[in-house]
Amino acid sequence: MRLEDVNTPALVLDKSRLEANLRRMRERAAALGVRLRPHLKTAKAADVARLAVDPADDRAAITVSTLAEARQFADCGYRDILYGVGMVPAKVPAVAQLIRAGARISIILDNPEAARGIAEAAGAEGIRLAVLVEIDCDGKRAGLVPDSPVLVETAGIVHAAAGLELAGVMTHAGGSYACRSVGEIRAMAEQERAATVAAATRLREAGLPCPHVSVGSTPTATFAGSLDGVSEFRPGVYMFQDLVMAGLGVCRLSDIAISVLGQVIGHQPDKGWVLTDTGWMAMSRDRGTAEQPVDQGYGVVCDMDGEVIDGLIVVGASQEHGIVRRRDGGPIALGDFPLGRRLRILPNHACATAAKHDRYLVVEGGREIVAQWPRFSGW
Amino acid sequence: MRLEDVNTPALVLDKSRLEANLRRMRERAAALGVRLRPHLKTAKAADVARLAVDPADDRAAITVSTLAEARQFADCGYRDILYGVGMVPAKVPAVAQLIRAGARISIILDNPEAARGIAEAAGAEGIRLAVLVEIDCDGKRAGLVPDSPVLVETAGIVHAAAGLELAGVMTHAGGSYACRSVGEIRAMAEQERAATVAAATRLREAGLPCPHVSVGSTPTATFAGSLDGVSEFRPGVYMFQDLVMAGLGVCRLSDIAISVLGQVIGHQPDKGWVLTDTGWMAMSRDRGTAEQPVDQGYGVVCDMDGEVIDGLIVVGASQEHGIVRRRDGGPIALGDFPLGRRLRILPNHACATAAKHDRYLVVEGGREIVAQWPRFSGW
Repeated sequence: MRLEDVNTPALVLDKSRLEANLRRMRERAAALGVRLRPHLKTAKAADVARLAVDPADDRAAITVSTLAEARQFADCGYRDILYGVGMVPAKVPAVAQLIRAGARISIILDNPEAARGIAEAAGAEGIRLAVLVEIDCDGKRAGLVPDSPVLVETAGIVHAAAGLELAGVMTHAGGSYACRSVGEIRAMAEQERAATVAAATRLREAGLPCPHVSVGSTPTATFAGSLDGVSEFRPGVYMFQDLVMAGLGVCRLSDIAISVLGQVIGHQPDKGWVLTDTGWMAMSRDRGTAEQPVDQGYGVVCDMDGEVIDGLIVVGASQEHGIVRRRDGGPIALGDFPLGRRLRILPNHACATAAKHDRYLVVEGGREIVAQWPRFSGW
Repeated sequence: MRLEDVNTPALVLDKSRLEANLRRMRERAAALGVRLRPHLKTAKAADVARLAVDPADDRAAITVSTLAEARQFADCGYRDILYGVGMVPAKVPAVAQLIRAGARISIILDNPEAARGIAEAAGAEGIRLAVLVEIDCDGKRAGLVPDSPVLVETAGIVHAAAGLELAGVMTHAGGSYACRSVGEIRAMAEQERAATVAAATRLREAGLPCPHVSVGSTPTATFAGSLDGVSEFRPGVYMFQDLVMAGLGVCRLSDIAISVLGQVIGHQPDKGWVLTDTGWMAMSRDRGTAEQPVDQGYGVVCDMDGEVIDGLIVVGASQEHGIVRRRDGGPIALGDFPLGRRLRILPNHACATAAKHDRYLVVEGGREIVAQWPRFSGW
């Protein structure tokens, strides 16, 4: 089957681009001397995960954002799984099931109350749970700042609890998505490194173990100058890349491995609009490039071979309609876009767009569909 | 099972509110003298559809936005189905399958090229396809303006084609979502009515049949003063309502029938933030209220009984994290929101939020889960 033959809209994954992206990040990890623990929240697919990190490798380690991901990837044979969202006692029984089935699940927390509650829940389940203390390196979300007055107390509660094992510290530099230059990303990477290493140092000076120091975001992983003192990083979106990453200078448009296949369903000649069936149900409502120097609307329009059609973006979207126009407002030669012409749209945010679909149509640079890889969702 | 017992995040549907919303719109249809052809793109669930319109009723008629919805609802016994997105020849074979299985599918188109292409495709399939000509009443998306020089030509091609049946005209006043007052919505409803009736009149004066005149959006259906000359309307989001509708004055917050159940997963005491597990993967990226006088962020926070907690909204969201703060920036009493406290979040946009979930946890005003209704997705 070929891209010409399938129902639209549909999600296309270019395996050649995926493999190149995976290789580049493996090389980054090797150059920086850290373990790559990829975040699988973007891919949510066993077939993609296997290319990113071989589950049969004893050192294989992954990151997930939901317990559904933890379950699915444990079923694929991954043993070392970091659940990277603040843990609550009510979710411990679900984690305990995975641990009893043989997985090593690490969880994160960032305060004494959580440490005590999760220690109690783990004790009640009779499991031993690895815990990383979450560090706030950029003020964007969760975590303790490295000089927090409760950092050592929190880690100490974990270390003392029979059901918990203090495995170290972790952070996520989500602030890197808002950087305006490669220089700013490089500085953010150093800020991310320094914050976690400072927290690790405080724990060790207090006599607590801190074997793992975990950082990661695709921008900082791409541009970090040094990761001295860090043991692993956890980028995720690098597998597919997207327009937000391209806007940050993290990748080129030609590195973006996923696109939404659609077709022309109409025109508004007076307005110079081409209407497509790539609405927000297929693209997502994510408008991440709206904050960047170049606003890409709901996506950049490519031809069927994945080549960018210069200047065309999806400027508007309703549930099942996309409106394509020139970025500069100039006229489109509508004759070049007859009813039924197929297009591929590069997304703002790979995580959000991929989540609108239940499978990847896999191509290798061309239009031939060489595989269909299922995706999962839910919690 | 109760809302206290389930994994989070999860989608909750209050059946009492749903039924009240359904009743109000049925009463509107009766008062206005039009048929209610509900749009099921919001609900995408057989159990909701059956409450909205009984498939065993000979006059039952529905609207869908995807062929997947058409297939699913045809399987539920609905016969009269309007596919409300511009048709392309490549999608005719899928529609033909449904017609051969006994459904009456109406499709829409808005130009001579589409009329010719779809006539040819319908002819090749040996089916007879009902066609509504799409009218542009507000300049927002697709359709021909009522005085378009190609309106009569387009309808004439449909009427003359062996495989097509000219069923009338339709429009969708998507512009009603951007109105700033009930008065503006009322004016938009009249604009919607007048545009379709004018188009219908032109067709009839040209000797063409125009049995159906179809309009519809939840705001215009709610506030239309008269629908003289209109035969049916097609609201969809009215079933659940949402914060965008509340911001327009279409409903009260206490009418919103869906919410996302989540729990507190952390705090940032220095910032006065409560962190929850209701990120954009559960809420969607939709920020529809950002354009309204009151920006509700990613949603309004309610307690477990669905009562609004005054002043609290989800101000930020990453994939699996929500950040809850007071709308006025004032301090939250964090002690009232301990780790694990469960909350329900009212969404900006019911269609987008519901689409992030595979089922509804159904309650009837309380916390007892009386049913789980599956949702479907895809195209």
